[in-house]
Amino acid sequence: MRLKNVKGAKNIIDGSEYIINKPNEFKGKYNLVFNNDNPIEIEIGMGKGNFIIEKAIKNPNINYIGIEKFDSVIVRAIQKLDEININNLKLIRMDALDIDLVFNHEIDKIYLNFSDPWPKSRHADRRLTSKKFLDKYESIFKNKPCIIQKTDNRKLFEYSIISYVENNYKIDEISLDLYKDELFDNIQTEYEKRFVSLGEKIYMIKVSRH
Amino acid sequence: MRLKNVKGAKNIIDGSEYIINKPNEFKGKYNLVFNNDNPIEIEIGMGKGNFIIEKAIKNPNINYIGIEKFDSVIVRAIQKLDEININNLKLIRMDALDIDLVFNHEIDKIYLNFSDPWPKSRHADRRLTSKKFLDKYESIFKNKPCIIQKTDNRKLFEYSIISYVENNYKIDEISLDLYKDELFDNIQTEYEKRFVSLGEKIYMIKVSRH
Repeated sequence: MRLKNVKGAKNIIDGSEYIINKPNEFKGKYNLVFNNDNPIEIEIGMGKGNFIIEKAIKNPNINYIGIEKFDSVIVRAIQKLDEININNLKLIRMDALDIDLVFNHEIDKIYLNFSDPWPKSRHADRRLTSKKFLDKYESIFKNKPCIIQKTDNRKLFEYSIISYVENNYKIDEISLDLYKDELFDNIQTEYEKRFVSLGEKIYMIKVSRH
Repeated sequence: MRLKNVKGAKNIIDGSEYIINKPNEFKGKYNLVFNNDNPIEIEIGMGKGNFIIEKAIKNPNINYIGIEKFDSVIVRAIQKLDEININNLKLIRMDALDIDLVFNHEIDKIYLNFSDPWPKSRHADRRLTSKKFLDKYESIFKNKPCIIQKTDNRKLFEYSIISYVENNYKIDEISLDLYKDELFDNIQTEYEKRFVSLGEKIYMIKVSRH
């Protein structure tokens, strides 16, 4: 994603009611953030937040947390949120590497949408579906681990399939051309919209432990 | 595959030295067929045999068995073989359903090339990668099960990936666009040649037990 500097981004983010500023203080007790015991689902790398905002609007009985490390895109999500009013969505600005410092057996589902493919093999462990990350996710899932991934990057998708299976996930659903399949409840990211309009294929996989 | 009647096919097949006429008589002792203890690899649904014949020519230290149920295509394979002379390839005319009656813990690798996708879900167990077939294969593998599949059928491929994983296979290699990857040793089937020339994608997966 191309990142533009947004003036005053830091102030906007720090002052937003949607931002959890000290996320590690809620480790193991994110139900307090939402004041209920609804399931919590997170998107790692939410970008400008289109996907997770729509998810939250459509599913008021699920809590959502969007995670993103870049100020310049988080601020766009906050600007969108300022125009609506929802209480089942929060945002965290952090590096995904710290995810196991912030959550403890309280997450029901992870969404990975159009993650950075890190195409060079020496960067493979930076991919959000590498063993390194899958191991981190282990400690944040509440019960049955469940990951739903979409990407247009063939190589990342091939890598991810192998990695999931290697780490003992089963495959509940897979599509090698999401837009040719029946789409009951697909929410597009900004990136996805542009990409699909170019006629490119989107890959999707849903994995869990049985 | 379109099947044409070939006059005298049955006589040609029964009289060919490449055909194993009573395959169940060799169950558990196919090394006797080849007079050596080299690994044995089979292709289920070899069609006109292009793939398995080339494989056999290129790898004289591996034994190959092509399996096919339709006379009209087996006879084409025999006609090709009559022009060359190889002793590491045999053919069996049979239905894949009988595979566990014919082999017993003596096969090293199974190739599935462009198998019938059986698109209707009520026919799912006829697909060569259904649990029903994967269970049959269990009893024919010598040591570590290994299956290599190619197909152009997206739905069959998606189904097969899930089925392999469900049946405790790991994925060693996967390509969602074989012809865009480096092709070190790919041998094309007749069908594949035609299909690739139309610019269509070929999917490939190699699975085994770890």
